[in-house]
Amino acid sequence: MGASVERCVRLIVAYDGTGFSGWQYQPQRRTVQGVLEQAVARIAPQAERAVASGRTDAGVHALAQAVSLRLHTRLDNGTLQRALNAYLPEDVQVLSVDDAPRGFHAIDDARGKRYRYVIDDGIRRDLFSRQHAWFVRQRLDVGSMQRAARWLIGQHDFRSFQSAGSPRVSTVRTVRDVSVERRPYQSGERVLIEIEADGFLYNMVRNVVGTLVEVGRGRQGVDWPAAVLAAGDRCQAGMTAPAHGLYLLRVYFDF
Amino acid sequence: MGASVERCVRLIVAYDGTGFSGWQYQPQRRTVQGVLEQAVARIAPQAERAVASGRTDAGVHALAQAVSLRLHTRLDNGTLQRALNAYLPEDVQVLSVDDAPRGFHAIDDARGKRYRYVIDDGIRRDLFSRQHAWFVRQRLDVGSMQRAARWLIGQHDFRSFQSAGSPRVSTVRTVRDVSVERRPYQSGERVLIEIEADGFLYNMVRNVVGTLVEVGRGRQGVDWPAAVLAAGDRCQAGMTAPAHGLYLLRVYFDF
Repeated sequence: MGASVERCVRLIVAYDGTGFSGWQYQPQRRTVQGVLEQAVARIAPQAERAVASGRTDAGVHALAQAVSLRLHTRLDNGTLQRALNAYLPEDVQVLSVDDAPRGFHAIDDARGKRYRYVIDDGIRRDLFSRQHAWFVRQRLDVGSMQRAARWLIGQHDFRSFQSAGSPRVSTVRTVRDVSVERRPYQSGERVLIEIEADGFLYNMVRNVVGTLVEVGRGRQGVDWPAAVLAAGDRCQAGMTAPAHGLYLLRVYFDF
Repeated sequence: MGASVERCVRLIVAYDGTGFSGWQYQPQRRTVQGVLEQAVARIAPQAERAVASGRTDAGVHALAQAVSLRLHTRLDNGTLQRALNAYLPEDVQVLSVDDAPRGFHAIDDARGKRYRYVIDDGIRRDLFSRQHAWFVRQRLDVGSMQRAARWLIGQHDFRSFQSAGSPRVSTVRTVRDVSVERRPYQSGERVLIEIEADGFLYNMVRNVVGTLVEVGRGRQGVDWPAAVLAAGDRCQAGMTAPAHGLYLLRVYFDF
């Protein structure tokens, strides 16, 4: 058996946010960071905390969260992945483990993120999706939402879309892509909104979704997001869409 | 306000079985019958229990369970449906309420039922489906399963597919249809097995599924179900597939 060595790894992790009080460790609460660090502790002595690219809120899901981790282990990446999955509960799953550059930090090194938001606008709420899609009791006009979304693309001050609670130094972000589409889903349909940016303000995706849904309902026109951006005032935007429709889809790095 | 009258109604009910100890009322347990009767009690004095066509086990879901109910109410069917849904928890939903013939009984009057079984045979378990599909860690040969399923169609003694615990007087049933197909599901696929019969023995669908999956894995040949039927012995069939992949899809009546 060789000696254990300190290694920097990047984990890609999926989780169902339903049973968690969010990513971030809190004593007495079930959090993704908490259960992940417990699993790591059973395998390897760990000097530092697991750091996720985005500290998702309670109820928010991840299809591919990125986590940086420094640990001492002799295990190769595939074995480490299987060992972690063996110790993790069934609502968290490590999708991959790979070597990261020395000093890798999942927040500081992230070059961008992509989120998906899932809306059920069927005639009747699909009870099997009640914790995984926002049920909106009105069929949405996806064409209008697509046109409205174009106002958000590019570099803007997104302070109108920032919730209180976690202020950032700068509220300027570059949105690289926003897509709105209707897709078949089992016997019904879903409206999917995806947003990719170099970074996000607190609740920015959920506030953008709440705003686009106002347009989709016909309560606001397709140019409304431009006015909301220009106002620089959170009160001008739509409601904050609920957490349980939101999925962290991908995190981008230079490696 | 008119006087309340005693009425017989048929409810069609959907539920996510995950949070329930099955359909049937049990003290101190959360059951579908229990929460439904609680909701009914808030609306109408009720003389008799709600009767479901099939007493689904813990973890089994229903897309359209049929329930007979006799109650005193002045409410019309649409209002009754909305009132029930207002009092029901979010994992049970009344899809329709309609008038039933006097003396209607959801078990005695059922002319047949159709079940669906959902299998996730992807490379990686989809954690969002962990309570709604059986994860089989091997890609199944759906063509072989289709051929194997044909042996089950028609009138047979299905005692080989009956689990102990709830014996029936006769073990002869007529299977009207069995279908096995692979369907796209989000970014992956699902194998769906549907079985329709004039009636089912205890665990019959789950035992048929366990048997067809043995064929789909290549452990048994496509003619194996014929031998299992002929043996008349539960020990000859495949394992009982887990409850959480099973959905009661439809119940048939003459009206």
